[in-house]
Amino acid sequence: MNNLPDENLPITTIAVDAMGGDLAPTEPVLGAAQATLESTAHVILVGDKIRILNLLNETEYNANQIEIIHTDEFVTNEDIPQQVIKKKPKASMILAAKLCREGTVQGLVSAGNTGAYVLSASQYVPRIVGVRKTAIAAVYPTQNAQKRNDYFALLLDIGANVHCATEDMVQFALMGMIYASDIKGIPDPTVALLNIGKESYKGGEMLSRVYKILDRLPNVNFVGNIEGDDVMKGLADVVVTEGYVGNIVMKTIEGIAETLSHLGRYAFKHRFLWRLGLIALSGGIRTLKQLTDYSEYGGAPLLGFQNVVIKAHGRSKAKAITNAIKLAAKSYRDNICGKISNEISQFESNTFIDDIKYNF
Amino acid sequence: MNNLPDENLPITTIAVDAMGGDLAPTEPVLGAAQATLESTAHVILVGDKIRILNLLNETEYNANQIEIIHTDEFVTNEDIPQQVIKKKPKASMILAAKLCREGTVQGLVSAGNTGAYVLSASQYVPRIVGVRKTAIAAVYPTQNAQKRNDYFALLLDIGANVHCATEDMVQFALMGMIYASDIKGIPDPTVALLNIGKESYKGGEMLSRVYKILDRLPNVNFVGNIEGDDVMKGLADVVVTEGYVGNIVMKTIEGIAETLSHLGRYAFKHRFLWRLGLIALSGGIRTLKQLTDYSEYGGAPLLGFQNVVIKAHGRSKAKAITNAIKLAAKSYRDNICGKISNEISQFESNTFIDDIKYNF
Repeated sequence: MNNLPDENLPITTIAVDAMGGDLAPTEPVLGAAQATLESTAHVILVGDKIRILNLLNETEYNANQIEIIHTDEFVTNEDIPQQVIKKKPKASMILAAKLCREGTVQGLVSAGNTGAYVLSASQYVPRIVGVRKTAIAAVYPTQNAQKRNDYFALLLDIGANVHCATEDMVQFALMGMIYASDIKGIPDPTVALLNIGKESYKGGEMLSRVYKILDRLPNVNFVGNIEGDDVMKGLADVVVTEGYVGNIVMKTIEGIAETLSHLGRYAFKHRFLWRLGLIALSGGIRTLKQLTDYSEYGGAPLLGFQNVVIKAHGRSKAKAITNAIKLAAKSYRDNICGKISNEISQFESNTFIDDIKYNF
Repeated sequence: MNNLPDENLPITTIAVDAMGGDLAPTEPVLGAAQATLESTAHVILVGDKIRILNLLNETEYNANQIEIIHTDEFVTNEDIPQQVIKKKPKASMILAAKLCREGTVQGLVSAGNTGAYVLSASQYVPRIVGVRKTAIAAVYPTQNAQKRNDYFALLLDIGANVHCATEDMVQFALMGMIYASDIKGIPDPTVALLNIGKESYKGGEMLSRVYKILDRLPNVNFVGNIEGDDVMKGLADVVVTEGYVGNIVMKTIEGIAETLSHLGRYAFKHRFLWRLGLIALSGGIRTLKQLTDYSEYGGAPLLGFQNVVIKAHGRSKAKAITNAIKLAAKSYRDNICGKISNEISQFESNTFIDDIKYNF
């Protein structure tokens, strides 16, 4: 058996919102079951116990690594995020988040309503001391201009916040840097600022202050501003932006594959060769869409919490949930949250940074 | 001859920056020559007279409709926009803009340095009274969700400004609406706000104020917020956003075709059918790139000036310049600037708008 716990490793337990996502509870439960076969992670499934047990009965799993906490409340995509905590205090997503606060679990996975998930985590998962704002980081495919071992980069924030202050953005860079370093297995990931021009003074006051701070932080491998057409090139491992812009950019990219195939049909209507090409490619375009679902990395991390919090895509299949659980367990064992905490403390206590922040 | 002027029409003269763009002066001059054959527009070519004459000698044109103003200064892409007006006061782009101020021409076309062009126009082309900020509008291809006669929509501002105030954004909507109505030939174009969610309160204070004003303006066909993945669908004829966001989104879209073909090669490496598809499609991907160069509509208008100001793409070929000149002449004859002026005055004098602006 390949899932015998290494006796040197502490047990890592991940709470999974069994009722979150378009395909819940089936895919979250099957994904959790598979995770217990593929890894040493323990899983607590939070949701409708009878439905969960029925699903588990039909699949293989390691019974020693699975536990169920019952609730019959859950959040739908139609729920207004701001109302969820008051109206559905026993929702599976919320109970799962509370398990973090109690120290019962080390990480959290949900494919449910993003806004409600961010708010539940903000309410019940302890924040790292010194972190001003948490951020959602998208893991997205690039052209790999830097010739890394993989084709993915991190874009944050993509919507935990709308507008940000200078220090928020610098903290996003630091948190993204730690995360990218770990998941990409590289010691010194490059960090860039998404802007409307390369020059340091571009994009208004806030962005040019962020530029100056990142440029002078000795432990940040800052490569400067990148523009919209560079986002997909992979010129940097971590791309920092305000939630407002990151959300619009990420959704624009997600909408592209569909549009291209549609536009293609229009533009190439009378060209047999092109038509042939589109038919041959249709499977490929689907593959690209799946890539942008970031299922390969198991989901988008919410950074800034003392626990690992992973948002899996709403349409996640079992495999994506399995990956998300393994990712959460690995991130915990790699002590990502502790490393982020150290990095943030170091930044906040750095007096030379105060000079930069307030004197230019 | 199909270019005999209709005696009822006043002569329309367009200044063309013969030295602007990656392929200048060849393509701007050949494009201008062709415009005199295809339309009644008069053209003043501003640039190096000897080079212009040499090019004209090798092509056909209507000599009655072409004039040359000589200068040996011109702006390159390497020039820093903020320094151009002081350092190169006789640059072709600047002299062309001055022809607007003098009333010698009714419109302006350049494929040169965008930043320098915006600043030259701002300095020398009179602004419409009441317009707070001018805007660059991108004409981009969509999936035509509204089933219009064409596949294009307008996104503004894409970079004349960085951040904007409520009233700036409302004015962008009004200017875009007039322009879209004219070039798309539809009486009541739909207008949307680019945001991070459909709900009116999304995106922070400024955007939600803009939402409320547009929603209550009786002459604006406002369809609410659209998100990033809706940009390419064509859910609205006019999409309003801050220059900062519009610039990043437009450049992200421009970078996509290249990335897709690259990513495709990676993802499909071992699939012969997909490879075949990509080869068959490569011409199509080029076509899509050209579409996003908005050459079909001749260029991106700079809105808010008393004259028609068109920014042609930096890589414009003769045909795109010809189209830009014809577009500028048509926009003048259609009195787009006058209509924008009326719309802006009406908005600014509307006291019920003051109530909305300051009382919520």
